[in-house]
Amino acid sequence: MAQIQGLAAHAAGAELLSFRYDPGELGMHEVEIGITHCGICHSDIHLISNDWGISQYPFIPGHEVIGTVTAIGSQVRSLAVGQRAGLGWQSNSCGECEWCTQGLENLCPRSEATCVHRHGGYANRVRANGRFVFGIPDSLPSEQAAPLLCGGITVFNPLRDHAINPSSRVGVVGIGGLGHLAIQFARVFGAEVTAFSSSTAKEEEARAFGAHHFVNTRESKAMKEVTGTQDFILNTANADQDWGVLIQALRPTGTLCLVGVPPSPVSLQAFPLIAGIRTVTGSPIGSPHRIREMLDVSARHGVKAATEPFPMAKANEAIEKVKKNKVRYRAVLTN
Amino acid sequence: MAQIQGLAAHAAGAELLSFRYDPGELGMHEVEIGITHCGICHSDIHLISNDWGISQYPFIPGHEVIGTVTAIGSQVRSLAVGQRAGLGWQSNSCGECEWCTQGLENLCPRSEATCVHRHGGYANRVRANGRFVFGIPDSLPSEQAAPLLCGGITVFNPLRDHAINPSSRVGVVGIGGLGHLAIQFARVFGAEVTAFSSSTAKEEEARAFGAHHFVNTRESKAMKEVTGTQDFILNTANADQDWGVLIQALRPTGTLCLVGVPPSPVSLQAFPLIAGIRTVTGSPIGSPHRIREMLDVSARHGVKAATEPFPMAKANEAIEKVKKNKVRYRAVLTN
Repeated sequence: MAQIQGLAAHAAGAELLSFRYDPGELGMHEVEIGITHCGICHSDIHLISNDWGISQYPFIPGHEVIGTVTAIGSQVRSLAVGQRAGLGWQSNSCGECEWCTQGLENLCPRSEATCVHRHGGYANRVRANGRFVFGIPDSLPSEQAAPLLCGGITVFNPLRDHAINPSSRVGVVGIGGLGHLAIQFARVFGAEVTAFSSSTAKEEEARAFGAHHFVNTRESKAMKEVTGTQDFILNTANADQDWGVLIQALRPTGTLCLVGVPPSPVSLQAFPLIAGIRTVTGSPIGSPHRIREMLDVSARHGVKAATEPFPMAKANEAIEKVKKNKVRYRAVLTN
Repeated sequence: MAQIQGLAAHAAGAELLSFRYDPGELGMHEVEIGITHCGICHSDIHLISNDWGISQYPFIPGHEVIGTVTAIGSQVRSLAVGQRAGLGWQSNSCGECEWCTQGLENLCPRSEATCVHRHGGYANRVRANGRFVFGIPDSLPSEQAAPLLCGGITVFNPLRDHAINPSSRVGVVGIGGLGHLAIQFARVFGAEVTAFSSSTAKEEEARAFGAHHFVNTRESKAMKEVTGTQDFILNTANADQDWGVLIQALRPTGTLCLVGVPPSPVSLQAFPLIAGIRTVTGSPIGSPHRIREMLDVSARHGVKAATEPFPMAKANEAIEKVKKNKVRYRAVLTN
């Protein structure tokens, strides 16, 4: 096989540089994708900076891949060469553990991530186990669908897990790459949706994505007015929040679910949790089954990322713009 | 009706003094109990000290009552004069709100507590709405059953809500009035039970109550060894804990549930919650339906509080012993 050509981080926080690697022989359970699109997720930036202490250099970031299947291993039945397909954060799991065998591959302790100790999607091609490569429904355009493979499933999964339904009141904290998709999905589940953001400039767009209400998290009066109104609050922001005020915004039996990772510990008073059976939890990506479901729901209900395309060669420029929070709402690299 | 005679707190933290009040006419939905037994719960002590800022003096504490029905209002059908009956933390609810109408009266915003702005069970008689007075199964002795009415339901309810079953691994933190009942109930649900305590002196008794394992929370090596082993941890202690270590002790999808109220905020790293779908929640008492279920389960499976009786006149002495953590495991006042 020809070498794979991409853009790799060679040191923590460094600019990406051109990089080639030999992918070796295609494994019998593997699929190779010729990449047309790859979203830029904040996790890529954390990996480039080694914020989580797990990065090995050099590596090619990227885990919101869409492209065309260029090769399949001998044991792959679910995909065909020439088919449009996508790959997200997870590229393999053991297939045997208690989590894999109950369809929770995203919890597999031997899970492999697409661009952790491996090379990802800021490249011309990428490989993964076929169980983690998904056909893309025809009606979804690749550029707007790429961010669904990580950002989309990350917000869809907790809405499904927590049985969001047409009687639910759902709050979405942080209107960015994840949040703008969360608003759309929460609407698809039939919920009454409140967007929480520290940026009033996002109100109009939040409403356009489907939010019924908008609350400026910096206005303590507005935050007080939503006391006891939300069944489920999804925190998509990577920033610290006034957690006490968000817990207060929950109705009895309500849940605050974290998908964004705040930098500081989350501090909670026990009493509102105990008295109101309120819950704080978290959620990571989703299983292959849920990713297929999410893609199907997106196709049927028209959920799409709002994207800004950049040629693959301008990845560093795109990353800078993402870091400055200037992209509305997801940067997607194109080949 | 004759005046009710009891022991009341007249100021924050003061010794209880003899006190009489006129209960007025019996309401048509009310039941009066001639008290034979009343457990001393830590909540009584918090109310006496006004730790929660909700106490109104003078008031008679006590909300783990067992006795004999002495009078019933004209509309009460579920109880009869002369029957043995019990009363817990809650003495009334609105009966109309979204929580009452779904059998979650414990979440009713107009809930009335037996000894908050009312007079409770350190007395010869007490009254409550008949929906919150429960017949006691014959096989449960009154002294050992009284603590079930608050302590028992507080730990039974979350085990039921979180579907504890024979494949569950349940940790109980704090082996006291609540914890010793939680161990017994967790065993009744069929779980593998681990007792967590800072006091090695309690190991033998914890095992006698049904714990399969005992972990000293002060031994960091022992705490590390239980990493990733528990499906459900019930914190019954009113003390601060190393929450990070307890979260680490949870398996993926595991839950830490607070019923004891730690004095400081609970500080949590977001990442273990997100990566492992781990949950922190709380739980307050239980609904009348659940209290009946808990009493039935206790009767059928022999769950009983370990008690130390004190004559009602020695309530102050008993309270001092509870405060000093010297009672194994629940003090019960007797008339």
